[in-house]
Amino acid sequence: MTDSISRSEHNDQSLIAAIDLGSNSFHMIVARQEGDEIRPIERLGEKVQLAAGLDDHGVLSSDAMDRGLACLSRFAQYVRGLPAHRIRVVGTNALRMATNAEEFLSAAEKVLGHAVDVIAGREEARLIFQGVAHTMAGQDEARLVIDVGGGSTEFAIGKGFNTTLLESLHMGCVVYTKRFFPQGVISAQNFQAAYYAARLELLNIIEGCQQSGWSVAIGSSGTVKSIAFVLQGLGMTRSGITLEGLEHLRRQVIAVGSVDKLNLSGLKPDRVGIFPAGLAILMAVFEAFQIPKMAYSDGALREGLLYDMLGRFHHVDVRNRTVQALMRRYHVDTKHAKRVSKHALKCFDQVDKVWLLEQEDRQLLEWAAQLHEIGLDISHAQFHKHGAYILKHADLLGFSQDDQLRLAMLVRCHRRALPEDAFVDFVPGIATRMFKLAILLRIAILLNHVRDDELLPEYRLDATTSGTALSLSLRAGWLSEHPLTQADFEQEQAYLAKTGFSFSVQ
Amino acid sequence: MTDSISRSEHNDQSLIAAIDLGSNSFHMIVARQEGDEIRPIERLGEKVQLAAGLDDHGVLSSDAMDRGLACLSRFAQYVRGLPAHRIRVVGTNALRMATNAEEFLSAAEKVLGHAVDVIAGREEARLIFQGVAHTMAGQDEARLVIDVGGGSTEFAIGKGFNTTLLESLHMGCVVYTKRFFPQGVISAQNFQAAYYAARLELLNIIEGCQQSGWSVAIGSSGTVKSIAFVLQGLGMTRSGITLEGLEHLRRQVIAVGSVDKLNLSGLKPDRVGIFPAGLAILMAVFEAFQIPKMAYSDGALREGLLYDMLGRFHHVDVRNRTVQALMRRYHVDTKHAKRVSKHALKCFDQVDKVWLLEQEDRQLLEWAAQLHEIGLDISHAQFHKHGAYILKHADLLGFSQDDQLRLAMLVRCHRRALPEDAFVDFVPGIATRMFKLAILLRIAILLNHVRDDELLPEYRLDATTSGTALSLSLRAGWLSEHPLTQADFEQEQAYLAKTGFSFSVQ
Repeated sequence: MTDSISRSEHNDQSLIAAIDLGSNSFHMIVARQEGDEIRPIERLGEKVQLAAGLDDHGVLSSDAMDRGLACLSRFAQYVRGLPAHRIRVVGTNALRMATNAEEFLSAAEKVLGHAVDVIAGREEARLIFQGVAHTMAGQDEARLVIDVGGGSTEFAIGKGFNTTLLESLHMGCVVYTKRFFPQGVISAQNFQAAYYAARLELLNIIEGCQQSGWSVAIGSSGTVKSIAFVLQGLGMTRSGITLEGLEHLRRQVIAVGSVDKLNLSGLKPDRVGIFPAGLAILMAVFEAFQIPKMAYSDGALREGLLYDMLGRFHHVDVRNRTVQALMRRYHVDTKHAKRVSKHALKCFDQVDKVWLLEQEDRQLLEWAAQLHEIGLDISHAQFHKHGAYILKHADLLGFSQDDQLRLAMLVRCHRRALPEDAFVDFVPGIATRMFKLAILLRIAILLNHVRDDELLPEYRLDATTSGTALSLSLRAGWLSEHPLTQADFEQEQAYLAKTGFSFSVQ
Repeated sequence: MTDSISRSEHNDQSLIAAIDLGSNSFHMIVARQEGDEIRPIERLGEKVQLAAGLDDHGVLSSDAMDRGLACLSRFAQYVRGLPAHRIRVVGTNALRMATNAEEFLSAAEKVLGHAVDVIAGREEARLIFQGVAHTMAGQDEARLVIDVGGGSTEFAIGKGFNTTLLESLHMGCVVYTKRFFPQGVISAQNFQAAYYAARLELLNIIEGCQQSGWSVAIGSSGTVKSIAFVLQGLGMTRSGITLEGLEHLRRQVIAVGSVDKLNLSGLKPDRVGIFPAGLAILMAVFEAFQIPKMAYSDGALREGLLYDMLGRFHHVDVRNRTVQALMRRYHVDTKHAKRVSKHALKCFDQVDKVWLLEQEDRQLLEWAAQLHEIGLDISHAQFHKHGAYILKHADLLGFSQDDQLRLAMLVRCHRRALPEDAFVDFVPGIATRMFKLAILLRIAILLNHVRDDELLPEYRLDATTSGTALSLSLRAGWLSEHPLTQADFEQEQAYLAKTGFSFSVQ
C-alpha cells in the first residue's frame, strides 16, 4: 500500500473516508465508492488510549490529547483535501465523558481540516451493526452484535440492515484495566471483581436484549479480535469463541499473574496491558447472554460510518426516520408540524443567500420545525424547555451530539423570550447561524399561529447582510384586517428587540 | 350563620373543609358529609389579591403576604381542629408563580395548622370541573367549563364526572388589570390590547379544545359570576351570558372611561377594579370558542376539592389512575414495576414503626416504585434523572406540586450515587422520611435486580431508631451462592456509606 494518497486520487470524486476516535485506538479507513459498494484502499489504526488519560473528574490529560493529535496529524495527510460531505470523523465514549472534550475537539478539527462529531452510545451501536451487516454474509438470521471497546461496550440486535435493539454500557477494557488491574497485577480476585462489575452493568439491559431475541452472536473490533486470535493460536477457535475457550484463557492469565509476563501467541504487544480486562468483560457478556459461541467480524464502527454516508448520498438519511419516530412517540400534531416546516423552509429560501446559510442549516431548520411541539407531551407550561430537554438527552439515531444540541436549542428558542445565553456554547460562526434559524422558525410559527392554512397571507422576507434585521412584507391592508396576527407580530418585535434584532412588518 | 363552628361540631367526624388560596380571593368552605353528599355549612370568601402583590421578578410582596395571612387567621378558627385527612388547602396561580412562595406557605401552614398544597393549572381545571359536575344537573352533555381567575384561566371539557381535556393559561383578571389598566383608565385601546393578549394566549389551546368537542359552555367563579350578575341587573341574562351582552358591557365600561366612575348595578365594590380586565378576557374566550351562550355555575374549585377528598375516602384516588396512565405513556415494564413495588412495600412494612413512617409515605413509595423506570423512555443513560425531570414537570392529575417534587426526588435517587443536596429543599422532618423511603426503594430494586422472582431470597430488614442504619438478613449461605447479588449489595453499601448511612447484609 502507498504511504499517502496521491494528488490524482484526491481529485478522485469517488473517495470516501471515516475516522473513529475510539477510547483505546484511533482508526481511519479510506475507500473508493463503486456504486453501492465500498472498496477500502487504506486502513490505519493507532493505539492512543485516550480513556487512560481521563482522571476521576473526567478531565482528559494534555498528554492524552497530545497522543491523539499526533495520531491525527498522521491521518490528516490522507484526508485533508476531501470534500466535507465525503468524510465523517466521530468520537466515542472517552470524548462523551471528558468534561474538557471541547478543547481536544477543536484542536482535532484544526489538524484534520474536518468537523468531528461526538456520537451517543446507541448511535455507535447502530453504526457498528451496519458495519457488520455490510461486511459479513448471513443476513437472514437475527444477530446480536457486540463491540467491547476501550470505554464502553455496544450491543445491537437486528436482522439484515435493520436493528431492533441498541444498547451501550459504560464498561470497556481501558477503563476496567485502570479500575481493576491498576498495577498490571492479575489475580483471581481482581479478575472476579472486574467480572462482577461487568455482570452488574449487564443487568441493566439483559432482559430487554433477551426478549428481543437473536440466534447468532458476532463480535467486532479489537478486544474480540485479539481474544479470537489468541484462541486461534491455541487451536481453540475452529467454531468461534466459546465460553470454554475464555475460561481456559482466564486460568492462564491468572496463572501468569502479571501483564508484564503475559506472552500469548497471536496477541499484539500493544494489547497485552488491556487483555485481562477485556477478557473479564467478554466472559461476563457470554454468561449474561448465555452465548454458545461468537464469531468475529471485520466490519466495525468505521465501516458503518462509510455505509451510513453512502445512504445519505442516496437520500436515505436515518435521521429523517429518527425524527418521524420522535414525532410519533411524543404525539406531535403532524398536520401543524408539516405546515410550520413548509413555511420555515419557504422563509429560509428567501434569505439564505443574504444570510450565508447552508444546506445543513436548512435541514436542521426542517427537523426543528417538525419537532418544535414535542415538549407538549410532558406539559403545556414551558413546553419549549421540555422539548429541548428531550432532544438533548434522548438517543437520536443518526445524530451526532452536536446535531442534537443544535436541534435542542432551536426548539428551546421557538417561543417566548430568547434566553440571553442561548448560543454561547456554540462557536461564533455556528451561533450566528443558529440565531438566524431560530428567528426563521419563530416567524414560520407565528405565520401559522392560527393553525388555518386559509388565513395565511402571501409574504416576502428581506434580510440585511448584517444579520441584525429582517422585514416581512404583506399585502397592503392585510395586517389591519387581521388584528390578532398583528398583535402577535408586535409581541414578537418586542421579544426580538431585546436581543438587538430588528424585525419589521409592513 | 354562626360566626364560628362550635366545639361539638368540631368533634363531629363528618365535617370536611376546603380552602382555596386564589390569586384574587381566598375562599373557604366547610361542609358536613352525608354519605356521598356534601352539605355546606359555612362559606367564606375574602378579596386578598395576592397576584397584585407579585412584582416583575415574581417576588410576592410582604404586604400581599400579610393580607393573605390575616385572612387565613380568620379562616383558621373554623378549621384548626379538623383531622388532617378531612381538609385540603390549595394554592393556585399566584403561588405557582411566586419565587418566594415557600415563605408564605410555611407561614400559612402555621396559621392554619394544616398543610398547604400548590397545585398545577391542569389539576386546578380538573377540580373545577368536578366542582361543577357535582353541583349542576345536566350530565349527559359534553361540557366546556371555564374559570377566569385572578392569575390564570382554566378550561375543562368532559361529560358526567370524566374529563377529556384540561388546560390552563397564564391570564387572569388581576394580572391583566395590572398589565393593561394600570391607572384604572378604561380606553378602547387598553381594552383592545387586553383582548388581543388573551386571544394570543388562547391560540395555544383552541384547536385541541375544539377537536375535543363540547355542546354546553359553563362558567364558574368570581369573574363569570360578576358579569352574569351585572347582565342580570340590566335584564340581559335570561338565557345566560351572550356575546351580545358582553359587547354591550364593553361599550358601557369604555364610555365610563375609568374604574373610579364605574357603577354597575349588581357589581360588588371589591370587583369593580378588575371588572374591565375580566370582561376583556371573557370576550376573547367567547370569540375564540365561538360560544353562543354561557351558564354560570356555583360549583368551583373548592367544591371540587371536597368531592375529590370524598373520593379518596372511598379509595377512588385519581392519583392511582394518573400513575397508571404515566406507566402506559412512558412504556414502563409493568411486570418489573409490580415486582419492585411489592417488595418496596414489604420492606416498608418491616421498618415503618421503628422509623416512624406514615401511611402517606407508604403510598408515595408505592408510586415511586411503579414509576422508577419511566426515564428509560428518553434514554438509558442517566435515566433516573430523566424520570425525575418528567415527574417534576408533567401535569400529574390529583397530585400537588409538593407530591410531585417528592415523587421526582425518590425516582432521582433510586440508583447510582445519592446527590448530596437531594433533600435540602424539603423541611427537615420530610427530608428524613424521604431519605428513608429512597433507601427502601433502592433495596427493593436491588433485590429484584436480576428480574427473576425465583431468584429472590426470603429476607428480613431491621432498622435502628436513629435512622442511620439498616440491616438485611438472608438465609445463611444464600449470599455466597449468589455472588452477583453480593457484588450488588457491596456497591450499594459503598453508595450509602458516603451519606453516612450504614447498610449491612448478613
